[in-house]
Amino acid sequence: MRSTITCRSIGVLVTTLLAGLAVPGRAVAQADPLPSWNDGAAKQAIVRFVKATTDQSSATFVPPDARIAAFDQDGTTWVEQPMYTQVLFALHRVGVMAEKDPKMKDAEPFKTVLSGDRAAMAKLTIPDLEKILMVTHSGMTVEAFQTIVQDWIAKAKHPRFQRPFTELVYQPMLEVMQHLRASGYKTYFVTGGGQDFVRAYADKVYGVPPEQVVGSAADTKFGYDKSGKATLTKVPKVLLVDDKIGKPVGIHLMIGRRPVATFGNSAGDQQMLEYTQAGDGARLMVLVHHDDDKREYAYGPKSKVGTFPDALMAEAQERGWIVISMKIDWKRIFAFE
Amino acid sequence: MRSTITCRSIGVLVTTLLAGLAVPGRAVAQADPLPSWNDGAAKQAIVRFVKATTDQSSATFVPPDARIAAFDQDGTTWVEQPMYTQVLFALHRVGVMAEKDPKMKDAEPFKTVLSGDRAAMAKLTIPDLEKILMVTHSGMTVEAFQTIVQDWIAKAKHPRFQRPFTELVYQPMLEVMQHLRASGYKTYFVTGGGQDFVRAYADKVYGVPPEQVVGSAADTKFGYDKSGKATLTKVPKVLLVDDKIGKPVGIHLMIGRRPVATFGNSAGDQQMLEYTQAGDGARLMVLVHHDDDKREYAYGPKSKVGTFPDALMAEAQERGWIVISMKIDWKRIFAFE
Repeated sequence: MRSTITCRSIGVLVTTLLAGLAVPGRAVAQADPLPSWNDGAAKQAIVRFVKATTDQSSATFVPPDARIAAFDQDGTTWVEQPMYTQVLFALHRVGVMAEKDPKMKDAEPFKTVLSGDRAAMAKLTIPDLEKILMVTHSGMTVEAFQTIVQDWIAKAKHPRFQRPFTELVYQPMLEVMQHLRASGYKTYFVTGGGQDFVRAYADKVYGVPPEQVVGSAADTKFGYDKSGKATLTKVPKVLLVDDKIGKPVGIHLMIGRRPVATFGNSAGDQQMLEYTQAGDGARLMVLVHHDDDKREYAYGPKSKVGTFPDALMAEAQERGWIVISMKIDWKRIFAFE
Repeated sequence: MRSTITCRSIGVLVTTLLAGLAVPGRAVAQADPLPSWNDGAAKQAIVRFVKATTDQSSATFVPPDARIAAFDQDGTTWVEQPMYTQVLFALHRVGVMAEKDPKMKDAEPFKTVLSGDRAAMAKLTIPDLEKILMVTHSGMTVEAFQTIVQDWIAKAKHPRFQRPFTELVYQPMLEVMQHLRASGYKTYFVTGGGQDFVRAYADKVYGVPPEQVVGSAADTKFGYDKSGKATLTKVPKVLLVDDKIGKPVGIHLMIGRRPVATFGNSAGDQQMLEYTQAGDGARLMVLVHHDDDKREYAYGPKSKVGTFPDALMAEAQERGWIVISMKIDWKRIFAFE
C-alpha cells in the first residue's frame, strides 16, 4: 500500500514537472479556450468555474481524481430534432430486418414503420417505440451491433441539414469538453440514449471513450459461438433507464462519484443537475436552451414542443444554474458554419 | 470533430516527448517491475505480455486506449479466507444495527449471527446470507455507506493474521497492477463483491479509483433530504450479480470494452477469462492458485474447500492460461513479511 501512495505521489510530481516544462505552451494555454462562444455570462461562468477548480491556490480547488464532468447528449451536444438520431437508426433497422424476415412486414408496429406514412408513424405509442428499439437493438453480439451502428452513422444524413449526424455536433460544446479535458477533467456522457449506441461513435466524434459513456442499457447474455469462443449477445431486457431519476442512479452505478460539472438541456436532466449541485465545493450546472430556430431549432419554455418546460427554467433561475441561449451565447453552432 | 482528433494527437505527442525526456529514468524502467516474484514461468509470461503489448514495434502492440486489465479481488489480490471480508463486515453490521433496532435480536437469521455461535452460523443458508447482506447494505445514502465501510475497515482485523484486511493484499499482485499502470494500462476490479464496498477503499489500497470498480451492485433511489438536497439511497434490489457469467456482462455494462489481460482465482472468474481470450491480438489470462497453507491458505484443485475446481485447472492447461503457484512463484506474499 505504501508503494501505491508513492506511485500516486510520482503522478503528482510528473504533472508538476510537466507544468514547469510547458513554458513554450503557456501562450496556447492563455488562448481563448471557447472561441465559438460570445463573451456573455454563460461563457464567463464556465471559464471561471474551470479556473476555480483547477488552480491550486483556489479555495475551491478540486483534485484531478475528482474532476468528473457529465454531459447529456441529445440536445446538449448534438441536434435532437426532429427526432432522436437513435430512433431514426431504429426505424432504418426495421427496414433492413424486414428484408430478411418478411413476417415483420405484416406485424405492427413494424408495418406502420415500413409504410413510410409519416402521419401514421407519428401516432406510434411509447410501447410501440420500445418494441421497435428492443427488436432492432438485440439478437446480435455487442461487436456486431457496434459495426451496424458505425456503418449506418457513416452514411445516414439529417433530413433538414443533409449532413451526417456526426457533423451536427455543437462546436461550442465540443470546445467545453476539450477545455475540461485539457484542465484534467474526465468527460462522461450520461445519456438517456442507448449506451451501446452512443459508445459506437462517442470516442471518434467527441473524444469520449466507451468506458465514459453512461446510458440506457439492456442486458447481455454470455455464451459461446460455433468455434467455442466466448460471446456477449444483446438481449431485450432493460437494465437501466438512464433518464430523469435514472441519471443519478446511472452515474452512481457506472462512475461511483458525484460529478462536479453537469450539462443538460431538458427535464430528463433535472435530477442529475440537482444531484451535482448537492455535492460540496464548487459546482457547475448548465442547461442548453434551444431558442434559435434559424440556425437550429427553438423548443424551449413557452414553446409547444418543449422538453424544457417552464418549471425547469424556473428551477434553473432559483438554483442559479447557467442557461445557455444558443441564439445569444453561441457565435457558431456547427463546425461547418 | 477535427479538433478532437488534433487534441488526441497532442496526447500521443506528449507521451512520445515524455518517453524521450525520461532518459534519466531509463534505469528505473529497466529495474525489475516485479521484485516480489520468483523468476518462473508466471512472472516471465506477465513481463513478456506487457512488453509485447506496449512496445510500438511489436506485432501485438495495443494502443493505450485499449489497454484494459481486469482483476478479481477476493483471493486474487487479497485474502478471502476464512470468509470474504465483506461477509465479516456484514456480520459486524448486524450487531451495530441490532443495538438500534432490538427487534432484530429475535429475528432470524440475525439472531443466529448475534449468538456468536460459530457452528450455528456455519449452517446459515445462501438466502440467509443474502438477507444479511441486503439489510446491512441498504437504507443509507451512498456517502453514509462509504463512511461506514471506511470506518470499519480502518479498525477490523483478520482473525488469523491479526492485521487490518487492507494489509492482507498480495504484494506480488500490487506490483503487477502498478507495472500495468506504469505501462499505460487501466486497471479495473471486476469483483463478485459489492461494488460500493470495494469502492470505499480500492483507491487508497490498490490505486484503483471508484469508476474502475465493477462489482455486484444493488439499486439506488433518488430523493431529497430534509434541506431539499438531492440524495441517492441504497435499496435492497439487485441490479447486477457480478460473478461467473455476470462478470463479462458487468464488464460490458461498466467498461464497454473487452479486457486484454484478466486475473482471477476461482470458477467465478472462468467466463471473464474466456471472454478476455476470445478477443483478437495478444491476451493474458491468469489464475492465482492457493497452494501455500503455511504463508496463506491452500484450497486449490484436489482440496476439499476448493473454489478452484479440477475442471478449471484442466481448462487453464488446455487454453494456455497462466497459473500462479503462490508457493513457488511468490517470493513474499504480503508487504509486511
